Amino acid sequence: MQRVIIDMDEVIADPMGDMIAWYRNKYGLEVDYQKMLGGSWLRGFPEDHQVIVKNRLMAEGFFRNLSVMLDSVEVIREMNKRYEVFIVSAATEFPNSLKDKLEWLLEHFPFLTWRQLTLCGDKRLICGDFMIDDHVRNLEQFKGKKYLFSSAHNMDVKGYDRINNWREAADIFLR
Amino acid sequence: MQRVIIDMDEVIADPMGDMIAWYRNKYGLEVDYQKMLGGSWLRGFPEDHQVIVKNRLMAEGFFRNLSVMLDSVEVIREMNKRYEVFIVSAATEFPNSLKDKLEWLLEHFPFLTWRQLTLCGDKRLICGDFMIDDHVRNLEQFKGKKYLFSSAHNMDVKGYDRINNWREAADIFLR
Repeated sequence: MQRVIIDMDEVIADPMGDMIAWYRNKYGLEVDYQKMLGGSWLRGFPEDHQVIVKNRLMAEGFFRNLSVMLDSVEVIREMNKRYEVFIVSAATEFPNSLKDKLEWLLEHFPFLTWRQLTLCGDKRLICGDFMIDDHVRNLEQFKGKKYLFSSAHNMDVKGYDRINNWREAADIFLR
Repeated sequence: MQRVIIDMDEVIADPMGDMIAWYRNKYGLEVDYQKMLGGSWLRGFPEDHQVIVKNRLMAEGFFRNLSVMLDSVEVIREMNKRYEVFIVSAATEFPNSLKDKLEWLLEHFPFLTWRQLTLCGDKRLICGDFMIDDHVRNLEQFKGKKYLFSSAHNMDVKGYDRINNWREAADIFLR
């Protein structure tokens, strides 16, 4: 069975979307998507609010209550029958996110088990046949086939095959 | 730089030693080391106490307060200058251990960073040049050079190069 490595944030979970909705609601302000280009959606928030946003990101519970990316559950349920699926999240920068991420995954993807989750600091030590990730820094050194999952912060990136949504992932992996 | 994958429990941290000391103190009983052979030190505890032991293992705080394995700090500090060191722990079975393990590592090995820790469910997706681990199930499918770190539960295992303690690891990696 071929192994597919799937990222969590901005790929199956939606921290950016949650944060933008919360920010709009609390401050009545919009983010600047242009400023996200280059790799970090945090930069889309006004500079004097970035500490508040970062603190919310670091707090216990934030990653527990995120929305699930559209169609990801249905497509990964099918992929899990045909591939060895691993969810790999660069999460050790956020100590409070670790248990939240595990519980979130098992709630929304009940067909996956704790054996299929990896929480790491650096994805260079992850090997597999396919990787789906929204960050070039994670894909760069991967030895298998790479797919950049489209997100506001990577729309300027060239040179990668893209997956724009989970319907497209189904077209690739479930043909 | 070559990459060394180092396990946590029974290799740099001592959950078995802590549990045995606690058990002896609480019940005045000894464990049966013979029964650990085959892969699980939990089996060394009397059957009617195994639930109590497992519950203590699952509780928040258990992995936060473990002893550090003799000489591991000094040897890994030097290894970290010559190799790309990653600490990889099969931990997602224990939701309450995740943050504890991160905090424990950064306290006792302050020269390592969160980037060097991976908490996973299955080590088959980990690649590197060397792996030091006390479980055959983790070493089996590793593509690089494997070292079985000796522990009470693996003394019957044949067919692996062994590291019996961190002085021996220094002889191998810091010659």
